[in-house]
Amino acid sequence: MNRKLKMGMVGGGQDAFIGAIHRLAANMDGLIEITCGALSINPVTAVASGKALFLAESRTYLTYEEMFKAEAALPVNERMDFVTIVTPNFAHFAPAMMALDYGFNVVIEKPITFSLEEAKLLKQKVEETGLILCLTHTYSGYPMVKQAKAMVREGKLGKIRKVWVEYPQGWLSKLSEREGNAQAAWRTDPTKAGKSSVMGDIGTHAAHLAEYITGAKITDVCAELNTLVEGRVMDDDGAVMLKFDNDAKGVLMASQVAAGEENALRIRVYGEKGGIEWLQHDPNTLIVRWLDEPAQILRAGSNYSHLSSFATHNCRTPGGHPEGYLEAFANIYRNFALTLSCKLDGTEPTAEMLDFPSVEDGLRGMAFIDNVVTSSQSDKKWTPYIM
Amino acid sequence: MNRKLKMGMVGGGQDAFIGAIHRLAANMDGLIEITCGALSINPVTAVASGKALFLAESRTYLTYEEMFKAEAALPVNERMDFVTIVTPNFAHFAPAMMALDYGFNVVIEKPITFSLEEAKLLKQKVEETGLILCLTHTYSGYPMVKQAKAMVREGKLGKIRKVWVEYPQGWLSKLSEREGNAQAAWRTDPTKAGKSSVMGDIGTHAAHLAEYITGAKITDVCAELNTLVEGRVMDDDGAVMLKFDNDAKGVLMASQVAAGEENALRIRVYGEKGGIEWLQHDPNTLIVRWLDEPAQILRAGSNYSHLSSFATHNCRTPGGHPEGYLEAFANIYRNFALTLSCKLDGTEPTAEMLDFPSVEDGLRGMAFIDNVVTSSQSDKKWTPYIM
Amino acid sequence: MNRKLKMGMVGGGQDAFIGAIHRLAANMDGLIEITCGALSINPVTAVASGKALFLAESRTYLTYEEMFKAEAALPVNERMDFVTIVTPNFAHFAPAMMALDYGFNVVIEKPITFSLEEAKLLKQKVEETGLILCLTHTYSGYPMVKQAKAMVREGKLGKIRKVWVEYPQGWLSKLSEREGNAQAAWRTDPTKAGKSSVMGDIGTHAAHLAEYITGAKITDVCAELNTLVEGRVMDDDGAVMLKFDNDAKGVLMASQVAAGEENALRIRVYGEKGGIEWLQHDPNTLIVRWLDEPAQILRAGSNYSHLSSFATHNCRTPGGHPEGYLEAFANIYRNFALTLSCKLDGTEPTAEMLDFPSVEDGLRGMAFIDNVVTSSQSDKKWTPYIM
Amino acid sequence: MNRKLKMGMVGGGQDAFIGAIHRLAANMDGLIEITCGALSINPVTAVASGKALFLAESRTYLTYEEMFKAEAALPVNERMDFVTIVTPNFAHFAPAMMALDYGFNVVIEKPITFSLEEAKLLKQKVEETGLILCLTHTYSGYPMVKQAKAMVREGKLGKIRKVWVEYPQGWLSKLSEREGNAQAAWRTDPTKAGKSSVMGDIGTHAAHLAEYITGAKITDVCAELNTLVEGRVMDDDGAVMLKFDNDAKGVLMASQVAAGEENALRIRVYGEKGGIEWLQHDPNTLIVRWLDEPAQILRAGSNYSHLSSFATHNCRTPGGHPEGYLEAFANIYRNFALTLSCKLDGTEPTAEMLDFPSVEDGLRGMAFIDNVVTSSQSDKKWTPYIM
Repeated sequence: MNRKLKMGMVGGGQDAFIGAIHRLAANMDGLIEITCGALSINPVTAVASGKALFLAESRTYLTYEEMFKAEAALPVNERMDFVTIVTPNFAHFAPAMMALDYGFNVVIEKPITFSLEEAKLLKQKVEETGLILCLTHTYSGYPMVKQAKAMVREGKLGKIRKVWVEYPQGWLSKLSEREGNAQAAWRTDPTKAGKSSVMGDIGTHAAHLAEYITGAKITDVCAELNTLVEGRVMDDDGAVMLKFDNDAKGVLMASQVAAGEENALRIRVYGEKGGIEWLQHDPNTLIVRWLDEPAQILRAGSNYSHLSSFATHNCRTPGGHPEGYLEAFANIYRNFALTLSCKLDGTEPTAEMLDFPSVEDGLRGMAFIDNVVTSSQSDKKWTPYIM
Repeated sequence: MNRKLKMGMVGGGQDAFIGAIHRLAANMDGLIEITCGALSINPVTAVASGKALFLAESRTYLTYEEMFKAEAALPVNERMDFVTIVTPNFAHFAPAMMALDYGFNVVIEKPITFSLEEAKLLKQKVEETGLILCLTHTYSGYPMVKQAKAMVREGKLGKIRKVWVEYPQGWLSKLSEREGNAQAAWRTDPTKAGKSSVMGDIGTHAAHLAEYITGAKITDVCAELNTLVEGRVMDDDGAVMLKFDNDAKGVLMASQVAAGEENALRIRVYGEKGGIEWLQHDPNTLIVRWLDEPAQILRAGSNYSHLSSFATHNCRTPGGHPEGYLEAFANIYRNFALTLSCKLDGTEPTAEMLDFPSVEDGLRGMAFIDNVVTSSQSDKKWTPYIM
Repeated sequence: MNRKLKMGMVGGGQDAFIGAIHRLAANMDGLIEITCGALSINPVTAVASGKALFLAESRTYLTYEEMFKAEAALPVNERMDFVTIVTPNFAHFAPAMMALDYGFNVVIEKPITFSLEEAKLLKQKVEETGLILCLTHTYSGYPMVKQAKAMVREGKLGKIRKVWVEYPQGWLSKLSEREGNAQAAWRTDPTKAGKSSVMGDIGTHAAHLAEYITGAKITDVCAELNTLVEGRVMDDDGAVMLKFDNDAKGVLMASQVAAGEENALRIRVYGEKGGIEWLQHDPNTLIVRWLDEPAQILRAGSNYSHLSSFATHNCRTPGGHPEGYLEAFANIYRNFALTLSCKLDGTEPTAEMLDFPSVEDGLRGMAFIDNVVTSSQSDKKWTPYIM
Repeated sequence: MNRKLKMGMVGGGQDAFIGAIHRLAANMDGLIEITCGALSINPVTAVASGKALFLAESRTYLTYEEMFKAEAALPVNERMDFVTIVTPNFAHFAPAMMALDYGFNVVIEKPITFSLEEAKLLKQKVEETGLILCLTHTYSGYPMVKQAKAMVREGKLGKIRKVWVEYPQGWLSKLSEREGNAQAAWRTDPTKAGKSSVMGDIGTHAAHLAEYITGAKITDVCAELNTLVEGRVMDDDGAVMLKFDNDAKGVLMASQVAAGEENALRIRVYGEKGGIEWLQHDPNTLIVRWLDEPAQILRAGSNYSHLSSFATHNCRTPGGHPEGYLEAFANIYRNFALTLSCKLDGTEPTAEMLDFPSVEDGLRGMAFIDNVVTSSQSDKKWTPYIM
């Protein structure tokens, strides 16, 4: 890289959760500087937020339309290189389409859009423009998730037979959307969150992780979505039985009402020769079990040869210096930035750099939500996965 | 108790797995003496096994018919008080029925019979005779499982919303039934194991645990059974979505091909106020999570007032002296023995003594297998649970 | 074995802690029957305890002197084969000496005697009589402790450099000896417990474990004993730096006032090539760390070839069926019983059978207490270990 | 804060370990921009490193003397606000003194200097200049370490009785300093590392953690330092028994040859009412054990009221989004930056902002090394702690 990349931001004003996370992740490796933003639809918040981020007043915009227009008018080396979109789900599509139209690369929070239809249009736009879109499916940024993927790809576990992925959270165990919790309010509002709350918010992470690690695609689902808190207008819990295109079977469980649980995403993948287990709460560890050998504890940052280049590329510290959620998030930004810089510099990114979620992953995520909702409403056991 | 109880055994000769477990469990507390046995259909094995157990030659029988007849002819204080049946599934029913007819109480390994029909007949026989039948659903013998049940019953978790129960094993990951593994051979043979291998062997344990802890009954299932090892003639993996009669939802996952897994039965139950997690590999610990409080680590044998009398009654040692599978098994024998002794002595057993699995639990286990198989073969999503 | 062995018991009446543990352990494997006892110095308790154990009235004795005399007068095949001594520390020596004089083999709770001098006399008596004395240093009965010992012996870890062993308990955090806790009362009374409470009760376990696993002997100690609860008349906490005869160094930490801890004995041993870690609270797991390989999780009962015959000989169940403290205890009884039976039968015990703690281990334990107390009272850093 | 703070760097060129860590930590929160550096004594490396960090050529210096002079000549709002010193131990003192003389605030890697004498002079200089010096004792930056400190301070555990702190690493298990490992080479070279390798590198962290959490000061040490790898010229292992000024006792264990261990710093502190345990490998968890209550699992980022403001101030994400080593490191930078900004802005920093290690902590660290070395060379058991 010859210079830091310049990032603009849509959404993410003060008190927004995920916008702050994106900034921490973008800052960490010193490859990106946050240059401009349309940080809130509330002008007061937008200005205050820009000031808190030490943005130039001239580049603290009140709307994204204004930002794209103004930035596009700046000289190439001054204008933003890409824009990060961290608005609620229903407000992803419009700024993303417009950014691409203006020639800006895009980083976007998941789920990629409000609807599958939007996702398809967005994918088409990305392909037309040849720009880069990066989707922040954070959990695939963890080095030991990448290690798991590498081990499956290299056949270490043999043919994959079974996937169990679960995502318990407890934060919606009460009717918090009626008690002034803004995050709970929009996430349980079908006009803002999309067709499913639990699957849009966390189920897609689990599905992405399953497909990412196994390299297989879901072909059929049998889903049940539940609203377990009385008075809630959207689902808050669900289970999905899965079939994959490599004949593996799976179960996906996601709940926002698993009282007392934090963010305990866990995946287990079993093949003919062994299995892996990864738990987001202990992310630097990958348990590898074997049929006829003792289980092994693979650790991020270790110096033994068992770690894939995809794992080591995504570590910053030696074993025993825990890297966490923000580093996983930063890995996505870093790989995106390295890839984008290669493009700007006319060089070739490595396979490790290119390993970040794309518009295709976003599209599959939206299809997952759609198919799960369809299945949940059906009396038939299996619903073929339609894209 | 005024004297040790005398136990006879059908099956459980040398090299049989579960028979040895039953003896360890029966011995431990010094309340039971193994007095006689029809330990094998192979006469040579039967005699050798009796000798190894220091049984009197006169009470080492070659068939259970012979044993029941001979023992029944002995004076009351000499004959066996009860018989334990540890033959393979298909050979439970006949000796159990005959034992009851001869007036012997029965301990029986799960699944209780080969078919649901047999289970119904057996239940009827138990009721007719007024004898005691104890089913060794081992995992409900653990003190922290009983603690979980007590906490649910006392409303500590609020209304129960969700149950996740899983039972991964890996021991059938290869086609071991073709490689001389006798245990694998009968367990994957539909003429010996019953309608389902995975559900008969381990799924019933998981289902029993879910109903035991929650006190709720399964009302509907949506099941998928898989044969994931090529060449196998029975299922070896499965998942079941569950509905309970208290409106809770559940997921049950069981696999014998989760390569590298041992016997990792785990259950999580979530209510309005909190949730519990119990893992058989760490059985003296019950994690209790709360909505607005730090999670707690409840430990068997602790002296704080948080433990139910049902937990403390089933511990032998103070906290930090791990009790395990054999002690859980022994708890079932001990409670059965205490209850039987009360009956013999004309006294009243406590609620804690009476807390061991019964013929009713056995019947529900068989119904579970049947309903899961029915659901698995159906195109409909939900199958109502038929007894 | 041709018959069950007959066991007598000195101490261990109702409400005594460790006597009940001995019986559970002796019962489990069906190799031993409890035949007689002098269970309490209180005659009422002695009789009631004998009845609760279903002992014959004629073999429920009021004193051990009476028991030894009466049993010795019985025919060989009727009299007890060995006696277990489970009185408080100060009352070990006299019955042990007398039992040996009467020709009875002995099982004895640790610490073996009240003083080092007694231990020496007892060792001399054992050697003179040629009888077997078994000391119940429970923790060396765990299969994964034996696995650790085997790995060290086989050089898997290379030359041993460092040992860390710790034994935190919290049960004496209050002045319970003044609040009616009988166990606390005698254990903190120097006329009953010996020179050190913390080292006599738990420090010896830790020291034995360190020497047992490494096969090395302590040569020098630098100790500090503390009384951390005001008003207590004995120590309740201590630390000891260690030198071993193989040039390894060590640290031993023991505390009875580590508030909230249960019985968390843990040992770590590091060599040139790797290290092991074993924790009594999770006893079926042995973590093995390697310099240039991922750490391994060795599990009791596994069927891979990594487990030593000394580990597998001491397991009753397959991996994933947790065996605990009582099974470890029972392993000591079982190995003692097998060895004694071989002697009675005129056959040769295997090395695995012979692997139980002996009078020599008891003597080293007493020397450990003595040397630690000497060191603690000294201004000099290092105290050479005197036997 | 009105603007980002400008940071210069001495040392930390390409391939240096700790310099990169400092930059990741300084970047993360967007409060600091790396503006200039004298990154290596090798001019080629210095220039290349500056380029890789996107530093202006004019502010990529070849020596720190040059940097301080040039930066001091810049207008106040352009010059660096502080300098971070990340050279090996022996090269901390000179640039730190000079920076202070030039009026620059200082962030410095531990141990603060090469010798205690230097540390005293540096402390004097800091006091004379009134500038801020921040020492990066990383582990005190973890939120759950701060929670532990708060709980002790608030008396939650009662009077503190016992501290166990351990720091096992295995990376020096081979004679790596002879095999081209530059890090190993200087850390085991007494002309570069100071009087003790193991205590300078990791023992000081452990000692700082013990004093930080308990709020007590070490008054006496009884130490043993070992060289366990043949051929090494410095110690690589040690143990220290501790006395504190609040009458608590302690044990500190540190090893660089605990083969297979990563960076497993762990501390346990026990008081009259309970104890805490914190392990750096699982840093978002604080286990709190109680005398008469179940143990609790306190988790960083949780929303219950049990967390101190000092813990919550140092979290960026909700519970279940693991923050790690880099975030702990960043907490130190962030608190330093907030404090420095307050000073620049003329406002008052909060107690939470002021909570970062100071020159006093650095001085105590150097004294710890000195006293431990003195004790290790002494025949006397206890060495009074001399500052």
